[in-house]
Amino acid sequence: MPPSARKRRTGSSVPLRASSSELPMAPPGGMRDLLPPVAMTRTLLWQRLMETFDLFGYQRVTTPPVEYADVIDRGLGTVDRRDLVRFIEPDSGEVALLRPDITPQIARIIATRLQDRPAPWRLSYEGTIIRRRRGRARKQHQVLQCGIECVGLKGPEADAEVIEVAARACERVGLKDFLVELAQVKIGTEVLDHVPDGARALVIETLAAKDARTLEKLLKEAGVVASERKRLLMLCDLYGDRTVIADARRRLQNSAARRALDELEKVVERLESAGLGDRIAIDLGDLRRHSYYTGVSMTLLAEGPGEPLGMGGRYDELLGRYDAPAPATGFAFEVDNVSWALSEAGVSLESELPLRVLVAGATPKKRRAVANQWRERGARVAIVPSQTVGEAKQYAKAWDYDLLIWQPGTNGKLTRMKDGRSRTLSGDPTDAVWSWVTVGNES
Amino acid sequence: MPPSARKRRTGSSVPLRASSSELPMAPPGGMRDLLPPVAMTRTLLWQRLMETFDLFGYQRVTTPPVEYADVIDRGLGTVDRRDLVRFIEPDSGEVALLRPDITPQIARIIATRLQDRPAPWRLSYEGTIIRRRRGRARKQHQVLQCGIECVGLKGPEADAEVIEVAARACERVGLKDFLVELAQVKIGTEVLDHVPDGARALVIETLAAKDARTLEKLLKEAGVVASERKRLLMLCDLYGDRTVIADARRRLQNSAARRALDELEKVVERLESAGLGDRIAIDLGDLRRHSYYTGVSMTLLAEGPGEPLGMGGRYDELLGRYDAPAPATGFAFEVDNVSWALSEAGVSLESELPLRVLVAGATPKKRRAVANQWRERGARVAIVPSQTVGEAKQYAKAWDYDLLIWQPGTNGKLTRMKDGRSRTLSGDPTDAVWSWVTVGNES
Repeated sequence: MPPSARKRRTGSSVPLRASSSELPMAPPGGMRDLLPPVAMTRTLLWQRLMETFDLFGYQRVTTPPVEYADVIDRGLGTVDRRDLVRFIEPDSGEVALLRPDITPQIARIIATRLQDRPAPWRLSYEGTIIRRRRGRARKQHQVLQCGIECVGLKGPEADAEVIEVAARACERVGLKDFLVELAQVKIGTEVLDHVPDGARALVIETLAAKDARTLEKLLKEAGVVASERKRLLMLCDLYGDRTVIADARRRLQNSAARRALDELEKVVERLESAGLGDRIAIDLGDLRRHSYYTGVSMTLLAEGPGEPLGMGGRYDELLGRYDAPAPATGFAFEVDNVSWALSEAGVSLESELPLRVLVAGATPKKRRAVANQWRERGARVAIVPSQTVGEAKQYAKAWDYDLLIWQPGTNGKLTRMKDGRSRTLSGDPTDAVWSWVTVGNES
Repeated sequence: MPPSARKRRTGSSVPLRASSSELPMAPPGGMRDLLPPVAMTRTLLWQRLMETFDLFGYQRVTTPPVEYADVIDRGLGTVDRRDLVRFIEPDSGEVALLRPDITPQIARIIATRLQDRPAPWRLSYEGTIIRRRRGRARKQHQVLQCGIECVGLKGPEADAEVIEVAARACERVGLKDFLVELAQVKIGTEVLDHVPDGARALVIETLAAKDARTLEKLLKEAGVVASERKRLLMLCDLYGDRTVIADARRRLQNSAARRALDELEKVVERLESAGLGDRIAIDLGDLRRHSYYTGVSMTLLAEGPGEPLGMGGRYDELLGRYDAPAPATGFAFEVDNVSWALSEAGVSLESELPLRVLVAGATPKKRRAVANQWRERGARVAIVPSQTVGEAKQYAKAWDYDLLIWQPGTNGKLTRMKDGRSRTLSGDPTDAVWSWVTVGNES
């Protein structure tokens, strides 16, 4: 619907830009179109993930794609302005931006509009965020996220719940092989204070990559004293299965570290009792999100995308920045990465969708009658006024239909295109499936 | 997930804005948050509408909230710059904006990325657009739309299909009383050429409001000659049931008008044969969208919102502006208006959702066990570590749970809060439903 079309003849407006320019293929700023059939399966995927969040009592909120810079700033701390798409909001004159994260919006909502409801707040969301890719080409990048926030509960019970929900969501969409990598930033963060500002980012990345030799070299060059170097290098080894916790307990003698390990262990125990023991790995050298998380955090990994399927953890300091202090933990999926992992594992949600049927030939009236019969059986049915069966076949192929129903005159015929359910056809799927099945006159 | 959090200590960045300012309650620019439980029911509503589009073979596309100004400009013609939220896209230096309409984005996709697929293109979409409200307070306004575009088919068959899909979608979500008002801008548009530019907008509105006296006065003042005045005044009467078409045929003698009436009549016949005859009204004096539509158009009306539930029609000129000429027709719902109409009619989609259950009391382990039992039965279950049953009840009330399950020690008790299915409770729904139902120990 064009809200402004009616003004074309009457308004005093001018073209925004000469329309003689070339039509852009893609939307601006790294944004993406999703075409058929991907748009459908992507929607189905995030809906399934959200349904798991529903099952665990998380209630949905919807936040807009645009947010005040102030709200994002409180949540993320200082951000590089080059990382954001900002503009002046015309009504208020305030700086607004395309959200680079949804959690700050959830924090705003809890701190303002949901303060009258008792804790805990269990909220879920789905939405697109805009991030810039790091590295040489600083292109923007549209990311579809869906996630949960559990605000107002402290302790391992809530930590484990959020991690379990993420795992159950993976199971629900059919992903069998995935790994939950747990970190505990309370161990290691204070050692980072001994690393000079300029070296810290590289030290964290090198530690996460378990490259002990490079790490030692870096720390020496940065002038970190031997005792602190040793503590950071020790973290390089502290990854693997749950025995890492016992190992760390032997090596780390200070009481803060031991309390942090107790927390982590309780989360691990809870996940084991939920039958998720086999999924868990531990990495105490992962300090990459140490400035945001305040306790146990997790990274969800699977074959395929080369990036996490999702991340989450405890962030007890965030809500305080919105003047509504509360402990909190959360998790978010990057839906595209989940999709990638599913496709790598040969799992398709498309089989959950109704058959797609194309009706062609015959007369308009007959086509409609047949189409309605199939719709009543739950199929998704389109009609094309093709002149020949060849034309109809070509159309059905190009638009990925499961079945073509063609009616030349009064003898109805059914063209079996491919099996929409299992998608396991022998032979050449683009051609061999074009066998004909004669059915009665369906009209 | 905070993409930039890790930079806080190391980067050379500065705060975007002093965080001592007051936290905004709402998002910027007329954008909206949706809170529980509305966010859920709204999602369910547009999903149901989209499922009807699926059934008729419309395939989903997803377009981003931001678009190049050029793309929107081609689709809508010249627009008032004050109506748009524009910014410079940092990577390209091009002007981008928050989309005020989705159809131009669909046109861009068809003209660029889907040109290799055979016609017709049947596409559906869902998304938020930003419009400015007309009138004194030119506030922006976030509108959730979902719609369809049928591109590449001319003639009443396609017109009627799109209208039928809209009607079926209403039926599917449970709306029983709605009206499909058909217009045909081909009749009347050419008369508007005799009205001076400055008077045209008011003439169109007055005609749409059937205010013949004011209309005549306006036309005289604008210097429109008597014969043209008569033709426009005649349109004032041409609304009502389908007998309007025969009436118009008698009054309008020129061949172009008669061809336009033939088109309209064929659409009406098709809709009647689809059992939608009772839904139809005709208004030949509705020229409000004459600069966009090129043939039969429709407005979907129902009690409640005071605005259409959706609009659509034939727009054969649009695709040509994207260098991909093709006949086209489409329709879009404004989801909030559909929601309003449903609520006015006492229809709720919430009854389709699983029961919401709160588990409290007992021990963490027992709570989890009970929660899992209920989840297996399909319920949406949250756990709270409430100390007293009073606290748990208060929580359940505030967050709109259907059932509270409380376990003091080993004797499990079930608090029946309200019937989550039918929501037809006698007595005071906020209090009388707090009767207790004793059940066995569920753990």
